Amino acid sequence: MPTDIPAYSTPGENRQVLLTSRPAGVPQASDFTLASSPVPRPGPGEFLVRTIYLSVDPAQRGWASAEANYSAPVPLGGPMRALAVAVVVESRHPDFTKGQFLYGWFGWQDYAVATPQQVILRATQDLPLTAFGSLLGINGITAYLGLTELGRPKSGDTLVVSTAAGSVGSFVGQIGKSLGCRCVGLTGDDRKVALCKERYGYEVALNYKSGGLDEAVAAAAPDGINVYFDNTGGTILDTVLRRMAVAGRIVQCGTASIGSWNPPPSGPRNEREILTRRLVWSGFVIFDHMSRYGEAADELARLCRAGILSFDIDLAEGIEQAPGAIASLYAGENLGKKLIYVG
Amino acid sequence: MPTDIPAYSTPGENRQVLLTSRPAGVPQASDFTLASSPVPRPGPGEFLVRTIYLSVDPAQRGWASAEANYSAPVPLGGPMRALAVAVVVESRHPDFTKGQFLYGWFGWQDYAVATPQQVILRATQDLPLTAFGSLLGINGITAYLGLTELGRPKSGDTLVVSTAAGSVGSFVGQIGKSLGCRCVGLTGDDRKVALCKERYGYEVALNYKSGGLDEAVAAAAPDGINVYFDNTGGTILDTVLRRMAVAGRIVQCGTASIGSWNPPPSGPRNEREILTRRLVWSGFVIFDHMSRYGEAADELARLCRAGILSFDIDLAEGIEQAPGAIASLYAGENLGKKLIYVG
Repeated sequence: MPTDIPAYSTPGENRQVLLTSRPAGVPQASDFTLASSPVPRPGPGEFLVRTIYLSVDPAQRGWASAEANYSAPVPLGGPMRALAVAVVVESRHPDFTKGQFLYGWFGWQDYAVATPQQVILRATQDLPLTAFGSLLGINGITAYLGLTELGRPKSGDTLVVSTAAGSVGSFVGQIGKSLGCRCVGLTGDDRKVALCKERYGYEVALNYKSGGLDEAVAAAAPDGINVYFDNTGGTILDTVLRRMAVAGRIVQCGTASIGSWNPPPSGPRNEREILTRRLVWSGFVIFDHMSRYGEAADELARLCRAGILSFDIDLAEGIEQAPGAIASLYAGENLGKKLIYVG
Repeated sequence: MPTDIPAYSTPGENRQVLLTSRPAGVPQASDFTLASSPVPRPGPGEFLVRTIYLSVDPAQRGWASAEANYSAPVPLGGPMRALAVAVVVESRHPDFTKGQFLYGWFGWQDYAVATPQQVILRATQDLPLTAFGSLLGINGITAYLGLTELGRPKSGDTLVVSTAAGSVGSFVGQIGKSLGCRCVGLTGDDRKVALCKERYGYEVALNYKSGGLDEAVAAAAPDGINVYFDNTGGTILDTVLRRMAVAGRIVQCGTASIGSWNPPPSGPRNEREILTRRLVWSGFVIFDHMSRYGEAADELARLCRAGILSFDIDLAEGIEQAPGAIASLYAGENLGKKLIYVG
């Protein structure tokens, strides 16, 4: 990073985190460059936002990659694609007024000129501003819609979740518990094991790095696993797959454990598990479900106000924290949803 | 096989094909022994059937295996579990009368004492008797319910089927075509390629043994594959998976290409394909869908009488053909549904 960029914004200046090299695997700090340019001005039908909380999401790995994916790669030299909580500072659009708080596609930068298409949610629910980058962010909504739409848990079901203390998993456990599931969380850190049990609705939480995962999962799910909400893939998936109950559902929401998909790594073939256990294994990408976003956000806000859901934020401060933040996320260093305060 | 067993039944004698060793992989003729015992007599609430057509089904491999499965293994020394078309010859049950034709669990033997639970279908539809062991047998109903319930094809979809000329695949192609799909069949034999195109509804048929399958599948499905009805697993599945369209459905109906599941073979990891293409991959076992059997059989009979569906039988003659029949099926030697005439 250049050292002549100030840590905090000065008037008229827009600091940006640019993607300047194409990452192999998980993006590292060295793949980004912090730069500065004049604050842009909104044209007709546009508005200018000042970001407050920049979001750090596992999906950014995919957005930065040149591999075939569900979205076009972030152009090299452009600001890193990111979600953020922001406030309108100037508007030339009749539906947006100065002082409104928004959650949307504003990138890793201080300011963005935006159109309504970039806005995911208007922050109207009566909750702290950080909730819009976590509980009501794509991670919370992914947890809710992925679990209810694809996982289809019933009361009494055994629900297993990988990266159980993560920004998605921490909500899957709580939502699963509220639906009457027996929740089993898999995580890679003893502090997170404790968080899973104390805060995230998990009756059992296992550190998969402790060894003996196969026996521990079998003991935690003696009647088999009805729903597996998977954020890791890899050997953890292989272990859980062999303990699925007949007619179980697998939600493939992430593949965090796989270092590189090119060339594709190999693992045990699983066609026979799918067949004999009559599983339904589905891929979940939130962007297929945006029409239900508002409804899901209202429900999660209701559950939060009722004390049924809580959320934790892992807050960093200053835009200079952004370049290394995705790597830190994949290293499992965060406790709670990672946000960067830049407002 | 003992040589003192006559090829054809004599009065009072029940020839049986016993499973006498536990197969490793595909059951071979040497895993069975032909034996003879007196014809059993029905007790109260039971009836005696004489088998006419013994069915040979790929699923028998799983039933004969000691591996964890969806059904208990056939006991060693007992008659091989099998479906058959049979006629009632004596009844002590009010709902069954002498002369009625039935399709059900009567085993590889001349005679069986049965209860109503063993009956899958009463042969009331106006079709040749062989239809009850093929079009209206578990293979035809699997094709219909697997495709419509799990594959959920829409008109205009591209449907790819492996073992496309087999006892299930030959119906999947025809049913898919009748629903407006563009059907692509994969098979391992040029005679079957021709059958696929001439009789089984496939617009394109490919011999996967000819090489260049990846390019051929890509050319046959330029807009991606919406439904993959898979009976093979393995490298054919790997190839098709990489050509699936977003929101595609995979029906895992069989895994014929895998020689042994113990230890599980490995292949490319596919979590990323499931996730980024948002696939739904489901296992299909007909026994979960028996409540819809009669309705499906009526619909298939209607389509057959209307000239929309046709079926081919690969007929062997004599119970002594049974022991080697499963291995012959896995070697792809049959053209049409394999039945053994013993009546």
